[in-house]
Amino acid sequence: MKELSRAVQEGAIAYLKQQYKVVTIFFVVLFAILGVISWGLGLLSGFVPFAFITGGFFSALAGFIGMTVATRANARTAWGARESLNAGLRVAFSSGTVMGMTVVGLGLLDISIWWWLEEIPPIMITFGMGASAMALFARLGGGIFTKAADVGADLVGKVEAGIPEDDPRNPASIADNVGDNVGDVAGMGADLYESYVGSIIATMALGAVASLGLDSITALQAIQVPVSIATIGVLCSILGTFVVRAKGDASQAVLLGALRRGTYGSTALIAIGSFLLVILTLGSEFLGIWAAMIVGLIAGNIIGYFTEYYTSDHYKPTQLLSNEALTGPATTIIAGMSLGMLSTLIPVLTVIGATLAAFFLLGLYGIGLSAVGMLSTLGITLATDAYGPVADNAGGIAEMAKMEPHVRERTDALDSLGNTTAATGKGFAIGSAALTALALLAEYGNKIKVMNINLLDPKILIGLFLGAMLPFVFSSLSMRAVGRAAGDMVNEVRRQFREKPGILEGTERPDYAGCVAISTQGAQREMVVPSLLAVIAPILTGIIFGPFTVIALLAGALTSGFVLAIMMANAGGAWDNAKKFIEGGAHGGKGSDAHKAAVVGDTVGDPFKDTSGPSINILLKLMSMVSIVFVTTVIALNDLFIRIFS
Amino acid sequence: MKELSRAVQEGAIAYLKQQYKVVTIFFVVLFAILGVISWGLGLLSGFVPFAFITGGFFSALAGFIGMTVATRANARTAWGARESLNAGLRVAFSSGTVMGMTVVGLGLLDISIWWWLEEIPPIMITFGMGASAMALFARLGGGIFTKAADVGADLVGKVEAGIPEDDPRNPASIADNVGDNVGDVAGMGADLYESYVGSIIATMALGAVASLGLDSITALQAIQVPVSIATIGVLCSILGTFVVRAKGDASQAVLLGALRRGTYGSTALIAIGSFLLVILTLGSEFLGIWAAMIVGLIAGNIIGYFTEYYTSDHYKPTQLLSNEALTGPATTIIAGMSLGMLSTLIPVLTVIGATLAAFFLLGLYGIGLSAVGMLSTLGITLATDAYGPVADNAGGIAEMAKMEPHVRERTDALDSLGNTTAATGKGFAIGSAALTALALLAEYGNKIKVMNINLLDPKILIGLFLGAMLPFVFSSLSMRAVGRAAGDMVNEVRRQFREKPGILEGTERPDYAGCVAISTQGAQREMVVPSLLAVIAPILTGIIFGPFTVIALLAGALTSGFVLAIMMANAGGAWDNAKKFIEGGAHGGKGSDAHKAAVVGDTVGDPFKDTSGPSINILLKLMSMVSIVFVTTVIALNDLFIRIFS
Repeated sequence: MKELSRAVQEGAIAYLKQQYKVVTIFFVVLFAILGVISWGLGLLSGFVPFAFITGGFFSALAGFIGMTVATRANARTAWGARESLNAGLRVAFSSGTVMGMTVVGLGLLDISIWWWLEEIPPIMITFGMGASAMALFARLGGGIFTKAADVGADLVGKVEAGIPEDDPRNPASIADNVGDNVGDVAGMGADLYESYVGSIIATMALGAVASLGLDSITALQAIQVPVSIATIGVLCSILGTFVVRAKGDASQAVLLGALRRGTYGSTALIAIGSFLLVILTLGSEFLGIWAAMIVGLIAGNIIGYFTEYYTSDHYKPTQLLSNEALTGPATTIIAGMSLGMLSTLIPVLTVIGATLAAFFLLGLYGIGLSAVGMLSTLGITLATDAYGPVADNAGGIAEMAKMEPHVRERTDALDSLGNTTAATGKGFAIGSAALTALALLAEYGNKIKVMNINLLDPKILIGLFLGAMLPFVFSSLSMRAVGRAAGDMVNEVRRQFREKPGILEGTERPDYAGCVAISTQGAQREMVVPSLLAVIAPILTGIIFGPFTVIALLAGALTSGFVLAIMMANAGGAWDNAKKFIEGGAHGGKGSDAHKAAVVGDTVGDPFKDTSGPSINILLKLMSMVSIVFVTTVIALNDLFIRIFS
Repeated sequence: MKELSRAVQEGAIAYLKQQYKVVTIFFVVLFAILGVISWGLGLLSGFVPFAFITGGFFSALAGFIGMTVATRANARTAWGARESLNAGLRVAFSSGTVMGMTVVGLGLLDISIWWWLEEIPPIMITFGMGASAMALFARLGGGIFTKAADVGADLVGKVEAGIPEDDPRNPASIADNVGDNVGDVAGMGADLYESYVGSIIATMALGAVASLGLDSITALQAIQVPVSIATIGVLCSILGTFVVRAKGDASQAVLLGALRRGTYGSTALIAIGSFLLVILTLGSEFLGIWAAMIVGLIAGNIIGYFTEYYTSDHYKPTQLLSNEALTGPATTIIAGMSLGMLSTLIPVLTVIGATLAAFFLLGLYGIGLSAVGMLSTLGITLATDAYGPVADNAGGIAEMAKMEPHVRERTDALDSLGNTTAATGKGFAIGSAALTALALLAEYGNKIKVMNINLLDPKILIGLFLGAMLPFVFSSLSMRAVGRAAGDMVNEVRRQFREKPGILEGTERPDYAGCVAISTQGAQREMVVPSLLAVIAPILTGIIFGPFTVIALLAGALTSGFVLAIMMANAGGAWDNAKKFIEGGAHGGKGSDAHKAAVVGDTVGDPFKDTSGPSINILLKLMSMVSIVFVTTVIALNDLFIRIFS
């Protein structure tokens, strides 16, 4: 067990080494470009390039710490599950808590440093941009890696060599496990760091402007409010984690109750705490600030609930989807796509309601505050989200180490618990992405000092078209990347089996790290083009068509991307759980034709929910931040472009 | 053969009977509502309800005539193919020509009647609305019918009863053939009638306003230009059809050349004819009108070419997709989705380019003219498009009637030829939908006399969100409908086999019409909800949020719907042809595992490309027209709504 655990850690390190190489190049190039713009041309503050670097650094650090803890907790969770379900949960949940607190702690730390150095929120958008760029690499790279390893391990190991799943003789089996860590844990950590920081800094930036419209609040206070709310959120989340405990022989339902008690307890505490904050520091005439934040909290819970409704096998949609598996993979795919598309209705209506309510309360600043409110419980929601992959990996290790069957049963129960709580977490991430992107859109309007963009102007309409298309092209590139990286993995596993025949006989140790490196290289290579698209598309659009078209591009990408991201995430989640529902005994159970059809659905759903879908959330914010940071440069280049071509 | 042909005709009639029942209810209800608004409240011209009815009537008539000709041409094409490829093509192409000319002829006839009765273009929007509503029913109903019959025939006949495909003992086999006619022929006829008429009347409506900005052109001339261009298009298309002929022993390549000669010849003639028209009737200072029209023609050809590039197995994308079938259905689906998503890039860029160029030439009126230009060759492009399903059906009849194998080979060759030319036709339909919807959006702005809608206003942003979501929810409903209607068909075929055991022994004639009726009822029932969504969504949005949000809704739906429609159409087309590519001998050919995976892709693609995808095109225009027709009523109700809730 220790050996396996070490192999996974070894693989994760191999992944990080490679990832940092590629990311460093990207960051150095952008650092240089920002340097030229700020030091050379004087268009930006001299701090900007450094702010960019720290955003990337802290985002990576959040993912790194989370992953390190997770890889160390895997085996211990399996060991804990030998004793009881509760003991397993305690280990897994502790590691999730470390990650949750790391993300929020590092986020507030970096914001505080820059606030202390330079009291100008716009600079923070640059460090948000760094965090988003890093998050996109982590999500895309991790997502591509984990799916490539998964497919590679299955195709060569199971199908060609005929060895069982999770067999240690399969060189890709460790990569598969590493993938879960780098994709689901490190990727999610960087992603949520970006979401958290993004919502706070977007609101801070709007606060400076919003204060003009409010009566007696100062710009300083308006800027500090989101940080204060976030700080209260961290404290209440820590209190909430103490409630997550149960007796040694607790059942799954009792544990779910404990987890729910933790999150709902934190939510209630945050609501009370921020109410007191507003009353005591600003006065009761500013309760609109509190109300806008509560709007976000409620909206997050609604989206979270419906995410669970559409993707959990405790509800009708996923159960009906599993029925479709009886008539084969084609009907499974059609029904899953249909489910994903329909599931966009409630989240869109919820975001619309939250936007209107928050705007009614406090204008554009209110929209930002609702995003901050939605993510204020991140400390604990991330803890309940991140322990799922740990439990999943513990199961893999239990299987590979041939532990008692009840260990696997317990880790499976923990994993299934994790799926339920993770669904809620995903709802928060996706809802806050929409609200944050809206706030950033408003901040871009502030930047160009134009708050009236005519929708019926053809230059605006074409921006909407371009924007609506980008998430589709981006998703296409990221799905293609999974396919190509999987091809590399297949070749590598075949090569190892061919060159070291002792592996299959169990006499030679497979080169796990080599296999991981191949998949990592593939992932890093393939993530470059979609990432560049996010940076280049808004800049190029701005240079050719000017900043108004950029606003339309961002609005088009936000609306179509939000819908596409929900569709992909929920279709993927539902396929996954429909398969698990069948594995639980429905429609003939494991090995039946229905199960085979459901596996096809699950495989299609993997890149949907773990690569393309979540990456779109980051894409939307990264494009907005890139647009804001480069706005003066782009306007200058646009002038030049017009002069040359007219 | 005659008996089979009669059975198909019998089924088509059974379908039409049922379809007209449901559609009549819908039209009567809307006629009454329009009657109350126009005669009772005096908010609309008294002609409006009648204009609505005629639009629906002529759209249905276009589909009916096309289908009647097609069902009669099926068997004759098979008979012609006995003689030679060329003889088969001549019969099939003649029936396609009848349909093409019927569509354009009826379109111009109805426009002329209303122009003669009431010289006010806005009334024509109402008849466009009627045509769009009918087209949506035809496309959705036909699409649901044909896929339900297809799946039902396969699941019970092939899998359960073990009889071969297209076996006359299968009661659903005729329904399957009927489906091709009602979906691909009648549905397409009504659809393109709607596109054709929609582009002309939207441009006529804009012409009245555009004339204000132009120097010496009168409103009357600006309104007449699109009709005149369309008329030249019809004449040139007729001339073009005469060129489509070849020698008796002509090969497939020669026939493709003949078809291409016909369309390119017509295109050149139209370009010359409309040039002369503008010079001779308006003067050379109005060549911008001609240029805007040419912009549309060129854009249509570009989109058409790339539609073919992405979906034909003569090009790399579909060939690479067929490689993915080697690793199973999951990779086939992922790669197909990815291909469909990527294929949205060029059409969006083309529409953007066309929009900017046309607007630069003649403002919003120019955008309408480019749509008219794009569809000016419809007479002949529809002819080359509509003969494909006829050839497809001829193949089915040849198989069922056990004709010589070379007949089937030849009809397959004709069918494959049809796929190539149909791809171009689809490009024109989808491109013109975007441009027409843009023109209608502008017309809506004219109607509410506001041409400045602020994109950064939250009420506009929420409209974009709502709009971006609608095509997804609409597609979800239409895909669900296919699944449910297929379930009904499965039950009906099972019932017939059970109650009449003689059918399987070949001693009893199956109840073809009964089977068709069941599928028809299912289709009619299932098409109601998505159709109502198209009518209710913009009206309800207008009542609650006012007309500005409606504009945003239309813009959001247009941009995300356009991208989604292309994605679905091209993914579906590529899966279809990847399967045909494998059936042509690649990757092990028919019966191989790769073929099975490709069949899954094709089945998923069927509702994508034949039901949901093309319906979105109609949805976009129908929503725009509904918004325009009901605008005064909606504004009044919105005032009432605000007064009640404030």
